[in-house]
Amino acid sequence: MDIKDYTVEELEVLAQKIRDRILATVSKNGGHLSSTMGATDLIVAMHKVFDVNKDPFIFDVSHQAYAHKLLTDRWETFDTLRQFGGISGYTKPKESSYDYYVAGHSSTSISLAVGAAKAIALKGEERIPVAFIGDGSMSAGMVYEALNELGDRKYPVVIILNDNEMSIAKPIGAISKLLSQTMAGSFYQKFKGKVEKVLDHFPEGATYMAKRFEESFKLITPGILFEEMGIEYIGPVDGHDISSLVETMEVAKQFGKPVIIHAQTTKGKGYEIAEGTKEHWHGVGAFDPETGKAYKKSSAKSATQIFSETLVSMADEDEKIVGVTAAMPSGTGLSAAMEKYPERFWDVAIAEQHAVTSMGPLAKEGFKPFCAIYSTFLQRGYDQVIHDIALMDLGVAFALDRAGIVGEDGETHQGVFDISYLRAIPNMTLLAPYNETTMKLAMAFAKEYDHPCAFRYPRGSFLAEDCQCPAFELGKSVLLQEGEEILFIGYGNGVGRAEQTAALLEKKVAILDLRFVKPLDETMLESLSKRYKQWYVFSDSAKRGGVGSAILEFLNGKGISDISLTSFEYDDAFITHGNTKLVEESLGLLPEQLAERVKN
Amino acid sequence: MDIKDYTVEELEVLAQKIRDRILATVSKNGGHLSSTMGATDLIVAMHKVFDVNKDPFIFDVSHQAYAHKLLTDRWETFDTLRQFGGISGYTKPKESSYDYYVAGHSSTSISLAVGAAKAIALKGEERIPVAFIGDGSMSAGMVYEALNELGDRKYPVVIILNDNEMSIAKPIGAISKLLSQTMAGSFYQKFKGKVEKVLDHFPEGATYMAKRFEESFKLITPGILFEEMGIEYIGPVDGHDISSLVETMEVAKQFGKPVIIHAQTTKGKGYEIAEGTKEHWHGVGAFDPETGKAYKKSSAKSATQIFSETLVSMADEDEKIVGVTAAMPSGTGLSAAMEKYPERFWDVAIAEQHAVTSMGPLAKEGFKPFCAIYSTFLQRGYDQVIHDIALMDLGVAFALDRAGIVGEDGETHQGVFDISYLRAIPNMTLLAPYNETTMKLAMAFAKEYDHPCAFRYPRGSFLAEDCQCPAFELGKSVLLQEGEEILFIGYGNGVGRAEQTAALLEKKVAILDLRFVKPLDETMLESLSKRYKQWYVFSDSAKRGGVGSAILEFLNGKGISDISLTSFEYDDAFITHGNTKLVEESLGLLPEQLAERVKN
Repeated sequence: MDIKDYTVEELEVLAQKIRDRILATVSKNGGHLSSTMGATDLIVAMHKVFDVNKDPFIFDVSHQAYAHKLLTDRWETFDTLRQFGGISGYTKPKESSYDYYVAGHSSTSISLAVGAAKAIALKGEERIPVAFIGDGSMSAGMVYEALNELGDRKYPVVIILNDNEMSIAKPIGAISKLLSQTMAGSFYQKFKGKVEKVLDHFPEGATYMAKRFEESFKLITPGILFEEMGIEYIGPVDGHDISSLVETMEVAKQFGKPVIIHAQTTKGKGYEIAEGTKEHWHGVGAFDPETGKAYKKSSAKSATQIFSETLVSMADEDEKIVGVTAAMPSGTGLSAAMEKYPERFWDVAIAEQHAVTSMGPLAKEGFKPFCAIYSTFLQRGYDQVIHDIALMDLGVAFALDRAGIVGEDGETHQGVFDISYLRAIPNMTLLAPYNETTMKLAMAFAKEYDHPCAFRYPRGSFLAEDCQCPAFELGKSVLLQEGEEILFIGYGNGVGRAEQTAALLEKKVAILDLRFVKPLDETMLESLSKRYKQWYVFSDSAKRGGVGSAILEFLNGKGISDISLTSFEYDDAFITHGNTKLVEESLGLLPEQLAERVKN
Repeated sequence: MDIKDYTVEELEVLAQKIRDRILATVSKNGGHLSSTMGATDLIVAMHKVFDVNKDPFIFDVSHQAYAHKLLTDRWETFDTLRQFGGISGYTKPKESSYDYYVAGHSSTSISLAVGAAKAIALKGEERIPVAFIGDGSMSAGMVYEALNELGDRKYPVVIILNDNEMSIAKPIGAISKLLSQTMAGSFYQKFKGKVEKVLDHFPEGATYMAKRFEESFKLITPGILFEEMGIEYIGPVDGHDISSLVETMEVAKQFGKPVIIHAQTTKGKGYEIAEGTKEHWHGVGAFDPETGKAYKKSSAKSATQIFSETLVSMADEDEKIVGVTAAMPSGTGLSAAMEKYPERFWDVAIAEQHAVTSMGPLAKEGFKPFCAIYSTFLQRGYDQVIHDIALMDLGVAFALDRAGIVGEDGETHQGVFDISYLRAIPNMTLLAPYNETTMKLAMAFAKEYDHPCAFRYPRGSFLAEDCQCPAFELGKSVLLQEGEEILFIGYGNGVGRAEQTAALLEKKVAILDLRFVKPLDETMLESLSKRYKQWYVFSDSAKRGGVGSAILEFLNGKGISDISLTSFEYDDAFITHGNTKLVEESLGLLPEQLAERVKN
């Protein structure tokens, strides 16, 4: 039976079945839980009202779209969610033609819907793009850029705003407040005050009228922002009342112009333990669905945790240390510093451009900003790094978490391009730690360094054991061991990979902790070029424009032509999702595979 | 006498004196005219009310800040405006300590003001950041991201919105309409309708009350957007009435929370010929101030013009061709196609992120989008190129105008990084034409190519003469001439530079039109490596991660080690403003200088 023929009661049963399946799978595989559970009723209603065979269903970030996957040809294979070779945790057209577009970064859906609407208009077809977006995604500038065109050109687009009153972290910013404080919002109060002032001129019946106005405003206030931008607004509606959702969407479908449905939902809906709970249940590892307890947690300290602790102790000692995250306080570990020093560490919501630029003046005014952003998300602030930080040559330190392969999140989240896109920027220094001690030393360097710099580190734990080692000095590498003929050059987590690979070889190889890919340690490299002729580069980054490329530029500049250099960086392809080890194995990057490649 | 002691009358005289100086200088040197003339009264009032010695004066884009320069230690040197070694056309702290920040790209000012306000709060100082921003800059997402935090955290920041009812081109988008249609705006009408509906319940005196409400709304409507976001709003005020500007700014200064002053100004104010006129008078070359006529115009066809004409004729033949510009219809030449096919070519305002992403679905739906953006501005859409175009492997063609040195606009506008930041992106193809015919051929290739690609071309005319040559084939270069020992590899405009350099050498050198830096023509390069051992790379791009670097990666991969490669790409430094030839001379990039470098 087609979902189109379902009654509301049948849809409700279906929604519950979907939620059960999501809970069973996510508790086993890990994944996004509370957002997907909360969005299920909305998605079920969406499939009832709109036609997934022709209407573009565009999910923002798309981590909430599991119900959509289960409703479209992936019920059977859903077991493999986020596993290597299995179903992606995000929408992916290569996986299913029912997935209109890829998404993993936030706030693209309205731009995509506008583009789809333009195409549909040109083709003269009867299809309606439906953008599904969470309130947390509403803070990014892209949304505003897209609404600005949409409200002006009036394409028929339906936007479903899934308002669960939280971004990944707690809601930040004026927009978020506007949505969640609907009735009590300061705008509303202010506006009411102004109305009352006008009414004061009319003594008769003024109080009663003021009351009537209040009621009237209650209905329209949350929508003013959108209506003002030329987008029709319906809401707020209960995002778990399938009957009224279906009704509302039917109305919206007929509008013939842009309309936003503001639906209020509860995160984790249907799984009591997770309902309404904040950040913790957003993305989870495997857990026992009976108790909600995680099955196991890695005991090794993550790079993020080391960053987090070091930042707090640096902030303890120096009040000039400040920092920013774009809606990832827990993901980046900035949360610890934010809690202890709320006046010096800021979450600016999903707004990487603003996060980067706003740190510039702090550096100019004598503070030391740490800008903690995932490698993949700094792509959103690229121009700002160039134009607002590097051109001013200001001492902002970029802490690039999730550099390298990130595992289950997959291709939208891999942190592979940062060296390539940052290395060409003048005044920029690039460095990387490879274990706990070097992380602390890299951060100590960054703290004192009065120019832009970026240090990168992996998701999860470093590959390498801890060590004793010297402080970071600009452009100075450290030779960890001498060897015969062969030199392994490691950058960041690549040092651990180099060490593990070296341990599998009979011949002893030299290992260099490069530390800085910009500027390079030219003296060291030149000297090593005399002793070692076979160089291997280990770095969790794209080969094009990456560490190997930087070294080739150096060798060429020096006229050194007798080195055979092999880079074990990533080839030129997007990298799929799955357990990091399995993904690395598929790329031939496990130490045993690399050792074989060195031997041959 | 200090400006602080001036009477309003004296300020008016001063403003006129400044305008005269601007007109005299810009008519001689070229530069931004109408925006600077229009902003003069506002800037004079700003200097009267705020203290440039302590309050951060933050000019958005900063092309309108000439009056500020003239008021702060640059009256005498203003003659050298935009000339090599002279005064920059934008604010620049290295030039004067009165310039708080660099700006050349749009919409950064509010983020900077928020950052400055945070620093000031932490230092416990009594200073107020003043952001000066034009209405055209209000469309970019960064502004919204910054307002979102500002409205929430309520730092004392004064925003002066210079509303001259035009962006560089005509105003686009809902926000722009909201500002310019203040009284007649659809929101206002709609809201009024709702109020009237409520009033209908009160027969007595309802009409009179409705009228009172209307008056009341007239005052507050344009500010609703900002008030809703938590920013106080004052306006609109006459941006040429210095007396009321001073008064308004004095009020705003005392607010102790974020406030926006909405000032309406006339572009070109004080120079009748340019007043109110649109795009034409925004940025100008030298002209006769008596008549307004340009002294001369280059007769050679610009690359932009070739792109523009070719796009129109392609659009004539194929209705699948569509395109977008982000507020640069005339700068990119998209205007011609927009005029002829308004339903297929869009200006989406200053909104590069949205521009890029919104073209994705058009490609997916079978259209061929040309995304015409300056090299430097695509930095704003970098994540979108990766995440929304390349990951989907869609056939969007990026037309990168202003690649290379752009001349008088200088360091914020140089188009030097695109190869470095695009080359690492999987699925991306990079190509470049070097004269009129190859531009047409490159565009013909892009039109048929069903994957992402980007082609770059310079500001102004190509260096090379036109030619007869074969069509573009993926990854195929063209050997223009054979020679002895030496091979010149040209990419894009670099081919012309290679030819001009070759003409100055006694020895005949081989010249390769590389055409594709990704993928490279490996067969050709390998074969040439056997005949030529000295390679020189000519490309108007950053050396790090650039064309030379790509070739080094190739040679290394093939184990070819007997080539001496020299890249004449740009070294690792921001490049200053001035006449392009003078700038190139300072970098040693003129053909006669390059010929010398080859000889030695």
